[in-house]
Amino acid sequence: MLARRQLRVTIWNEYVHERREPSVQTDLPDRRSASHLMLARRQLRVTIWNEYVHERREPSVQAIYPDGMHAPIAEGIRRELGDAVTVRIATLEEPEHGLTEAALAETDVLTWWGHAAHDQVADEVVERVHARVLDGMGIVVLHSGHYSKIFKRVMGTSCSLRWRSEEGGEREVIWTVNPAHPIAAGVPQPIVVAHDEMYGEYFDIPPPDELVFISSYEGGEVFRSGCCFYRGAGRLAYFSPGDQEFPVYHQPEIQRVIANCVAWCGGASQPNDGPSAREGNSKRNWYL
Amino acid sequence: MLARRQLRVTIWNEYVHERREPSVQTDLPDRRSASHLMLARRQLRVTIWNEYVHERREPSVQAIYPDGMHAPIAEGIRRELGDAVTVRIATLEEPEHGLTEAALAETDVLTWWGHAAHDQVADEVVERVHARVLDGMGIVVLHSGHYSKIFKRVMGTSCSLRWRSEEGGEREVIWTVNPAHPIAAGVPQPIVVAHDEMYGEYFDIPPPDELVFISSYEGGEVFRSGCCFYRGAGRLAYFSPGDQEFPVYHQPEIQRVIANCVAWCGGASQPNDGPSAREGNSKRNWYL
Amino acid sequence: MLARRQLRVTIWNEYVHERREPSVQTDLPDRRSASHLMLARRQLRVTIWNEYVHERREPSVQAIYPDGMHAPIAEGIRRELGDAVTVRIATLEEPEHGLTEAALAETDVLTWWGHAAHDQVADEVVERVHARVLDGMGIVVLHSGHYSKIFKRVMGTSCSLRWRSEEGGEREVIWTVNPAHPIAAGVPQPIVVAHDEMYGEYFDIPPPDELVFISSYEGGEVFRSGCCFYRGAGRLAYFSPGDQEFPVYHQPEIQRVIANCVAWCGGASQPNDGPSAREGNSKRNWYL
Amino acid sequence: MLARRQLRVTIWNEYVHERREPSVQTDLPDRRSASHLMLARRQLRVTIWNEYVHERREPSVQAIYPDGMHAPIAEGIRRELGDAVTVRIATLEEPEHGLTEAALAETDVLTWWGHAAHDQVADEVVERVHARVLDGMGIVVLHSGHYSKIFKRVMGTSCSLRWRSEEGGEREVIWTVNPAHPIAAGVPQPIVVAHDEMYGEYFDIPPPDELVFISSYEGGEVFRSGCCFYRGAGRLAYFSPGDQEFPVYHQPEIQRVIANCVAWCGGASQPNDGPSAREGNSKRNWYL
Repeated sequence: MLARRQLRVTIWNEYVHERREPSVQTDLPDRRSASHLMLARRQLRVTIWNEYVHERREPSVQAIYPDGMHAPIAEGIRRELGDAVTVRIATLEEPEHGLTEAALAETDVLTWWGHAAHDQVADEVVERVHARVLDGMGIVVLHSGHYSKIFKRVMGTSCSLRWRSEEGGEREVIWTVNPAHPIAAGVPQPIVVAHDEMYGEYFDIPPPDELVFISSYEGGEVFRSGCCFYRGAGRLAYFSPGDQEFPVYHQPEIQRVIANCVAWCGGASQPNDGPSAREGNSKRNWYL
Repeated sequence: MLARRQLRVTIWNEYVHERREPSVQTDLPDRRSASHLMLARRQLRVTIWNEYVHERREPSVQAIYPDGMHAPIAEGIRRELGDAVTVRIATLEEPEHGLTEAALAETDVLTWWGHAAHDQVADEVVERVHARVLDGMGIVVLHSGHYSKIFKRVMGTSCSLRWRSEEGGEREVIWTVNPAHPIAAGVPQPIVVAHDEMYGEYFDIPPPDELVFISSYEGGEVFRSGCCFYRGAGRLAYFSPGDQEFPVYHQPEIQRVIANCVAWCGGASQPNDGPSAREGNSKRNWYL
Repeated sequence: MLARRQLRVTIWNEYVHERREPSVQTDLPDRRSASHLMLARRQLRVTIWNEYVHERREPSVQAIYPDGMHAPIAEGIRRELGDAVTVRIATLEEPEHGLTEAALAETDVLTWWGHAAHDQVADEVVERVHARVLDGMGIVVLHSGHYSKIFKRVMGTSCSLRWRSEEGGEREVIWTVNPAHPIAAGVPQPIVVAHDEMYGEYFDIPPPDELVFISSYEGGEVFRSGCCFYRGAGRLAYFSPGDQEFPVYHQPEIQRVIANCVAWCGGASQPNDGPSAREGNSKRNWYL
Repeated sequence: MLARRQLRVTIWNEYVHERREPSVQTDLPDRRSASHLMLARRQLRVTIWNEYVHERREPSVQAIYPDGMHAPIAEGIRRELGDAVTVRIATLEEPEHGLTEAALAETDVLTWWGHAAHDQVADEVVERVHARVLDGMGIVVLHSGHYSKIFKRVMGTSCSLRWRSEEGGEREVIWTVNPAHPIAAGVPQPIVVAHDEMYGEYFDIPPPDELVFISSYEGGEVFRSGCCFYRGAGRLAYFSPGDQEFPVYHQPEIQRVIANCVAWCGGASQPNDGPSAREGNSKRNWYL
């Protein structure tokens, strides 16, 4: 027993000695966690991407979104997240769709709305966004973005679904199935959207890593309307309510959920293992 | 087409009218999300629970943890989370183990270390802690806590595992398999613990909702050493490194992970659906 | 290069020598996988457990289920799985509720229906069933069984939900969100139940390991109605449609899903690691 | 109360009448589930795909796999699954790599080994295989196939990992973390591979839907070596042990796991919802 105790004390002393060296403490990588980020009030840099096509060519859409759908989306994010974010808008028609290497490098979370012009998004830009997501950027994909190149690229599935767009739409009731999840914070159980397009199952996506919302419609269909995914060092949230034909993005609860998705997607920490660390032949005991 | 456009405008006008009413905005439930919590610098109230038995009766343990294992655990949490937390200690020998209704009501995250005296924890207290977890409290279960009543109660499985405790222990190498997860923030890939007890698979727990760390040992065994679970409105993190016979809880990286677990477990939002909302016969259209 | 090649050949020869030894082949543990089980036509031994209370004291229930709810449940399993199963009935009023050690030892899959008498199920029997599940038995929990002791024990959560039982019930539409999952085999998308009790979210269970069905109701609620869980060496399936007040268990599609759940729960293989292998101090290199 | 009872009886009678109609029973879609498939002894049609490059140009590999790596893989599948399967070989150099539309239409499960020639696989063939997977085909990706176009396409991530290939390799110990999972059936806990290439974390894949094996190596690294995914109506299993430089595919336990993966991937049922059912505007009540 004495031998055992001495061994312990020896280990302990060696250890204490070691840990008192400042180098050990400063050897810790970048300490930024979500909480540190927030405490330090470092701002999340948000880019709101909108193809911005329907709003400019269809009077019915223009009546609802005279400044583009990105306007109420940005308004909601600013109202809900305030000083915690900076918001920038980018659209399809800009050079490189406003998603240059430099722009993405300064984006922590990207929101994506597209529909009529999915095919006009350049493959090169899609690859760039994809790489940034795996590298740690968050992405919030909205509604018809389920058929965007970037969403299909990250999901690896067809992303097809059922849909119905009737005159006047139909009531969508959005139920929370994970009531303490951050993307459901501050919204009622359930959220009622008076008029929306119907999106119904089967929705061909990988099983979500976290399922937060399930919607029902007047027609009886259901839809996994709020889904969270971890991919590489990044995060993806998909939230389905919202259509160019209905004022869904003006609804405060919907704006709140989108803001929550932005905050959640921005909650990834600085990764402690990056692709460059995984190149070449790892020598044995490289980490000792 | 005109009819369609008029309908849209009508919906829109009705909607705009509605949403401009202040009542709609103030109808949103409590807006506290993780980000709001942090921005508002509301402090996480942490209770560190330690059975505190080994440290008082075994000299070998006392040599390593003269003030109890809770001391370095608390030290690490305070160093890493600073003003974001308040820390309180509770031990087995206190009345109700220091976990009265009042104490739990004022605890956002509880950490749990037990081993020799699992059976001495009163069932009533276990039920109380369990209810608080489902109600939104976070719980961080450490090492031999895998066999605590509360862990087995939440998991619903036997929680058995392989183990080996040799003189001097053996090297444990802790690998991150989700590099941007908040509980891996700020620690190296891998973390090396020079001397630890071996915990090996099969570990009989439900498939973790998020698997963050996998350890290997000199003997070749592996272990899912960092596991995250969502249960009700609460969160549970299990982190296995650490034993009374080794100075693991003095190691800064281990302290950092425990602090990260505390922050992650405290990241649950105010739930938007509680048990009291689910009692009795729900009338049709109750939510309209 | 020559040295390298010689090494390879040496390894190869040693290896080939080794693997030609019959002992290596016969050292493989029990070869029973799901496919072998089925190919060998080894029968799944199914025990259908019913508390059998409502059917005997309420005329309205008796009119629908004159022989007990277990009768159509058994009928469906027999029709769908035929020679692949043997079926046995057990009820609350039998000694040890018909779930003795011997009975459970000869049960591969247990189905569970209870409601009015959850509290009358002996804790000892619950522990026994729980242990058998972790040891490899499948369990299919039906409808109001969500509040049974055994379901709450395995889940580790409150298992509370919203409900509504109106005169005449309401239409339930059951959507498949994993169209090739075995428990959805052979049923339409969607399944329509004309009259059922409403079960609605939030349903306080752990995130299902596999989510297969989501139901909607006329009242607009949704429910995760088909959920699969892996626990220890066993499997649990929960399927919510069905109530004593409605003839749901006579509906062929519902019977088919229950039979599918039985087959899926019986698909666990013989475990290659059991609790007895995880007792005591594992010597280093025990497995070499 | 009488009214209530009469209503029940009326519902019941209507229901019984309805369900006795043969049309209701025959309306059930194709009844093939995994169990029916097996009971009916319908054979799984397996295509073993091998790029077959190393074996023909490197003597060291040829010494180990004189007939190609596909030979022992096929041998193992045939030995373990016997009459339950038919096995066909396809290689890179065949027209369309042996993966024509017709060949894939007659394949239930495809196994994939590639390394030196990933880039030579035609994009058109990759898209075809991808579509077949989402349509219900299983795919078993082996070892260096982690960098194949098809694996990266389905995963949607970089699929990068750490690796080390030393002279003589190093010992890999494969631990089961889900002991009753069908892909672990009939193999020891743990499986020991005497000489293998090291694959280490972080492995950039989506969180597996089911994690079954974790490997450790002499160098202390760990790897999620057996991972299962559900994608569309198909299934994907990834199993990492095996390299052209070591005789891993001759080892019976490894062959058994690959055969298990084939059986598991072939266990998807006939989907009850296909892409063609999700085209166009779904009329309200289309399913009634």
